Amino acid sequence: MRRPTRLGCVTTSIDASTDQHAQASGDELREQVRAAARAARDAAAELALLPRGAKDSALRAMADALVERAPEILAANELDVARAEENGTAAGLIDRLRLTDDRVASIADGLRTVAGLPDPTGEVVRGSVLANGLQLQQVRVPLGVVGIVYEGRPNVTVDAAGLTAKSGNAVLLRGSASAERSNTALVGVLRDVLVEQGLPADAIQLLPSHDRASVRHLITARGLVDVVIPRGGAGLISTVVEQSTVPTIETGVGNCHVYVDARADIDTALRILLNSKARRPSVCNAAETLLVHRDIAAEFVPRAVAELRAAGVTVHGDEEVARLGGSGVLAAEDSDWDTEYGSLDIAAAVVDSLQAATEHIRAHGSGHTEAIVTDDVRAARSFTARVDSAAVMVNASTAFTDGAEFGMGAEIGISTQKLHARGPMGLPELTSTKWLVYGDGHVRPAG
Amino acid sequence: MRRPTRLGCVTTSIDASTDQHAQASGDELREQVRAAARAARDAAAELALLPRGAKDSALRAMADALVERAPEILAANELDVARAEENGTAAGLIDRLRLTDDRVASIADGLRTVAGLPDPTGEVVRGSVLANGLQLQQVRVPLGVVGIVYEGRPNVTVDAAGLTAKSGNAVLLRGSASAERSNTALVGVLRDVLVEQGLPADAIQLLPSHDRASVRHLITARGLVDVVIPRGGAGLISTVVEQSTVPTIETGVGNCHVYVDARADIDTALRILLNSKARRPSVCNAAETLLVHRDIAAEFVPRAVAELRAAGVTVHGDEEVARLGGSGVLAAEDSDWDTEYGSLDIAAAVVDSLQAATEHIRAHGSGHTEAIVTDDVRAARSFTARVDSAAVMVNASTAFTDGAEFGMGAEIGISTQKLHARGPMGLPELTSTKWLVYGDGHVRPAG
Repeated sequence: MRRPTRLGCVTTSIDASTDQHAQASGDELREQVRAAARAARDAAAELALLPRGAKDSALRAMADALVERAPEILAANELDVARAEENGTAAGLIDRLRLTDDRVASIADGLRTVAGLPDPTGEVVRGSVLANGLQLQQVRVPLGVVGIVYEGRPNVTVDAAGLTAKSGNAVLLRGSASAERSNTALVGVLRDVLVEQGLPADAIQLLPSHDRASVRHLITARGLVDVVIPRGGAGLISTVVEQSTVPTIETGVGNCHVYVDARADIDTALRILLNSKARRPSVCNAAETLLVHRDIAAEFVPRAVAELRAAGVTVHGDEEVARLGGSGVLAAEDSDWDTEYGSLDIAAAVVDSLQAATEHIRAHGSGHTEAIVTDDVRAARSFTARVDSAAVMVNASTAFTDGAEFGMGAEIGISTQKLHARGPMGLPELTSTKWLVYGDGHVRPAG
Repeated sequence: MRRPTRLGCVTTSIDASTDQHAQASGDELREQVRAAARAARDAAAELALLPRGAKDSALRAMADALVERAPEILAANELDVARAEENGTAAGLIDRLRLTDDRVASIADGLRTVAGLPDPTGEVVRGSVLANGLQLQQVRVPLGVVGIVYEGRPNVTVDAAGLTAKSGNAVLLRGSASAERSNTALVGVLRDVLVEQGLPADAIQLLPSHDRASVRHLITARGLVDVVIPRGGAGLISTVVEQSTVPTIETGVGNCHVYVDARADIDTALRILLNSKARRPSVCNAAETLLVHRDIAAEFVPRAVAELRAAGVTVHGDEEVARLGGSGVLAAEDSDWDTEYGSLDIAAAVVDSLQAATEHIRAHGSGHTEAIVTDDVRAARSFTARVDSAAVMVNASTAFTDGAEFGMGAEIGISTQKLHARGPMGLPELTSTKWLVYGDGHVRPAG
């Protein structure tokens, strides 16, 4: 059973504590990161020339090697887990840090899944012959050197390395200090396979994680690094956005809305609401706010509040929701509308119209995923036109915004920015393009 | 005669002098820029809902109004020109600043050309029905609020406003202080037409240009501005890249190479070299470095140097080029390989192999456009695979990297970054996408 590779978008983190023990002075660390980036750039130039077969062979060999060398990986992981336990890390976070034979096998299967996906590079995106006879082709090429800054789970290390290698990119992995020994063991295995296959080991590198400054050096290595993808909480993402001089892709912030329209089917609305909120409340596609049209509120709100509470969800309602929902509803504060709870909490409001709902979303949403539940085709058309988010659902759960669910086979994150990639990012989103122009000695006339 | 709309990529600027006369205190100016961005955001939400017909009608009405109100535009322009003359601005720059009846007519024709181009928004980029019956569509949508920072020529004001409006975006124009009165007059006409057509005037706004701080406020208006496109010299671009928290698209830096392979046809190579260098030396697609394979150097270099010198080009050669090219060749310094002259100068070197040429390009190029001249199909394949630039030409002049030449009908700039857009940017590059997902009450299974 091969699981689709998913890096997920869990927003809580094992890395809330400040990293300590800076091991290198500022200048040394900066030079270390830049040297890694330069080596990655050289490796990327080699990788870009590899045909699909060579990349897929390497990915499958990596999968085999991970399983074969699981004992040393698990031994390293035990040291990370022991340290996390000493530090009093919460049990849930320790669970995410912990590797087992099964988990290593699952990580290896992820690499095999990626090997089976089409190679995005070389794809001709557009092409034509111009009036003057010039032949034009826009083809996909690797981005080059991709930096990934992430937290917590060691599986991200391998998943990200697999996706970037498949798309012909070199990767600089800046993981969590809490997973440092695990990540070092995993990356060691992957690099050994690269060398065995005659490929440049520096296509996959782990950056020092003990000092937060390594993130800063990575995101300012302009000219050496082509893109940085921060994966983690709002704090990490805003640091990267504010300090980076390298282009970045913002991922994983989701304040998602479910809007129940005047002409919604009540049972459908309840099912979608519960699934959107409670299926996995910690992920970025979980609903954080419920908006209900006034015309259906008297019927819908009491049932919704009852079912949400039965599922363990705390409802933070406006006055109307509180009035209709009964004493179990907490009074929403202004900040609730902007909060990504990541927990079994939901904000809820009654709105006067579809337009009021879309205006609320525009004012408070994060542009991730919003859903409408309606039987009214005009309402569906209006909502999908007015809501400007990475994904807009009509009569479907917000939980579907996911690379695997979208049939991409794998995802490196969910972009909530508008530039380059929006929504789940698979292999094609890890590419750029270039124009190839073939002539017969063509020169451009004056003018 | 409708000219294709081109914003061009001329790299010299009338704005070399520091803008003075800050008119508002720092905080006031910041609030002024942010208020403009908020108003633009509201306008963008309206614009995004407009069908193509409404946008095209507005663009055509703008074209008519510009011609009709040319006298007031020219009067305003005369004041800018007079001030530039008082300031001792160079004649070439004053020529670019100056408007005439013909130039206004040409600007108006540019808007009509854009009106005739397909509307990129609403285009279904990908679509499928998933195994569970969910229907998936990835559709193009406007980016939202686009900031453009530019210099010199007032025609950019109208061209950029036309392209952004056509693609459903609101635009914040931050032009040059030297063109302030011209820009104010032009934007006034465009906004009047928006109002006449019942469209939001704030879809097109001119930001204060007297204080450089307005650029900083624009590029840090994260959450209000979706993308900033700096158009100008390297100084402007690096300021924007370093200080912005808003995503940016880097444009217009071009250190382009012509590589003459061992098996090049000499006459073809000379024609392409001369066209690439001397057709318009100030634009970003002009060649700045010539690389010649050693096997053809003895035959090619003397003729190339002679023809370049006859065209008024100064050759900065390495030792081998100097030896073969004669006494007219200046000795190249290390910095020459990294210089975008923007003038009738070219660096020239003899290389030992195609790979040495591509390594030189990787070390010194800006990723804009490189050309190979060769009759060897293996060399062409190797060069196009190894060179990672926005455009790679085989037996064609570098001068062809241009939106109009590529058949885009219009361009807002030439991106030299890898994220989002690479090479000439037309209307589709001014869009993002969103996913529309249609279900029948679909919820996602646990797991």
